[in-house]
Amino acid sequence: MYHIGVDIGGTSIKVGIVDSNYNLAADVSCKTALPRSAESVCDDIIILISKAMKKANITLSKIKNIGIGCPGTINTGLGIVEYANNLGWNKFPLKKYIEDKFEGKFPVLIANDADAAAIGEFFAGSAKGADSAVVITLGTGVGSGAIINGKLVTGQYYGGGEIGHTVIEYNGRPCNCGRKGCMENYVSATALITLTKEEMQRSPDSLMWQIAGGLDEVNGKTPFDAKNQGDEAGSRVVESYIGYLACAIANVVNIFQPEIISIGGGVCNQGDNLLLPLREIVKNEAYGSPEKNTEIKICTLGNDAGMIGAALLGEI
Amino acid sequence: MYHIGVDIGGTSIKVGIVDSNYNLAADVSCKTALPRSAESVCDDIIILISKAMKKANITLSKIKNIGIGCPGTINTGLGIVEYANNLGWNKFPLKKYIEDKFEGKFPVLIANDADAAAIGEFFAGSAKGADSAVVITLGTGVGSGAIINGKLVTGQYYGGGEIGHTVIEYNGRPCNCGRKGCMENYVSATALITLTKEEMQRSPDSLMWQIAGGLDEVNGKTPFDAKNQGDEAGSRVVESYIGYLACAIANVVNIFQPEIISIGGGVCNQGDNLLLPLREIVKNEAYGSPEKNTEIKICTLGNDAGMIGAALLGEI
Repeated sequence: MYHIGVDIGGTSIKVGIVDSNYNLAADVSCKTALPRSAESVCDDIIILISKAMKKANITLSKIKNIGIGCPGTINTGLGIVEYANNLGWNKFPLKKYIEDKFEGKFPVLIANDADAAAIGEFFAGSAKGADSAVVITLGTGVGSGAIINGKLVTGQYYGGGEIGHTVIEYNGRPCNCGRKGCMENYVSATALITLTKEEMQRSPDSLMWQIAGGLDEVNGKTPFDAKNQGDEAGSRVVESYIGYLACAIANVVNIFQPEIISIGGGVCNQGDNLLLPLREIVKNEAYGSPEKNTEIKICTLGNDAGMIGAALLGEI
Repeated sequence: MYHIGVDIGGTSIKVGIVDSNYNLAADVSCKTALPRSAESVCDDIIILISKAMKKANITLSKIKNIGIGCPGTINTGLGIVEYANNLGWNKFPLKKYIEDKFEGKFPVLIANDADAAAIGEFFAGSAKGADSAVVITLGTGVGSGAIINGKLVTGQYYGGGEIGHTVIEYNGRPCNCGRKGCMENYVSATALITLTKEEMQRSPDSLMWQIAGGLDEVNGKTPFDAKNQGDEAGSRVVESYIGYLACAIANVVNIFQPEIISIGGGVCNQGDNLLLPLREIVKNEAYGSPEKNTEIKICTLGNDAGMIGAALLGEI
């Protein structure tokens, strides 16, 4: 049997077919093309599902379930998207709409996109085989999902697991959520770029100016590239960023002490340059034991995590 | 049937008999009288159990199980106290020792004392009837226990749920755990006293000097009493303390979004003076929904929480 996974993003909609070994058999995508109605997006999802099944050469009789990952506050119990700001959806009955299109032939499960990505990494990626894992994606914001005691931590009203919006610097940088000093403002890709620009303005002689070509061209690689070429200002940015990230991860260890914490997002392309110093600080800071510590890994499914995890929503 | 609960503390050992409605039928206690061997402490526990049963007028045949709450890192699976710094215990097989004394007539369960207190409040106290709860005790340090999806969050090696050791102020006040800026250093009773003394030193005209009688006499009531008498310095301490506590609690909401967060410890005797401003800030800061928010309550079992929760370890 096969699972269908749908990842609804602000830019694109992706649909994948996942086999019983949790491998991706086929995938297709289209633009989300916002703004448009929830129904119109769903009708494109139906078309994508047909295309993906054709590509994988399977029929409806081979489908076990459809899972959908969606940004926003998702009422997984009722199958309703309570609120998805960047899609403009409000109390949309996503589960029912898609189930009806397939005349109730199989169940449709829905979840928050960061939770879906965590489930993908948990079953098929960096945390495969673990009992518990927390997955943190360092993108424009910080997405996170926690699987503890074999269950997803969703909170009583599907707003839990928002590790990105825990304060690590009291009265610190203002966050979009209304708080000050949330982890997201120090460890997201956006935050890394901000830290880099601030350091560049303090360091007019830094190599980062040449590497990036200007403040507007700065990206998450800039300080790492500069550090690799011996630039002190670049080193300061990298050290500062890893310090914040280690603090945030040590907090997660002390709360959940999961078997694995996986981090994803573009900055993780730095590999051991990021991972080795990070592990060292967390090991010194977090509670552990001589026998067993939380392992910090890099996500392996990349942008497919949400789609694959959505397909596997029925497995958790 | 009855449950026996044992709370091993640094100062006293308490044993209670809890009935099937989770009410305390009888309790007895003795001094822990450290330093002495683990075996000697356990032999006193056996004597206390006999006394408590006599007091409640019940026989061994009416006992379902014995539960023990103990400070330190507790391997609940193996029944071993891995490490309890203030008792001086290291890899002590607590479960087996007590079970053997009763010739295996009933199971002995063990848990960390903060987790036991959380279970007590969950089944028999402030969070009775809830699906999920986090209990935070503001004492010399900060103890915490989280019950999510019907299970205790213990971590893979029994070191999870240490919410007190999550950093809320990056590079902030040094903590006993080795980190800097842990919540414990801002919201424990000890931290409140430190904040008060610091403010008194900045404010030689504060009423707090008269109320306490001197720096060494300051306690957690001092700034609240001063505030109630219109003292501005006292108000600043109270506002600062509640700000930190709200930040820490909003973090817990954003991670777990439990049905209830219960706080305990001497400072909670301030009642609404503490609770009302705290709820207001958390409501503004934390993720919630129009329909349902995490409720913040004050613990109701006081110092009995650990003993009652220990008795109920088999219920979770």
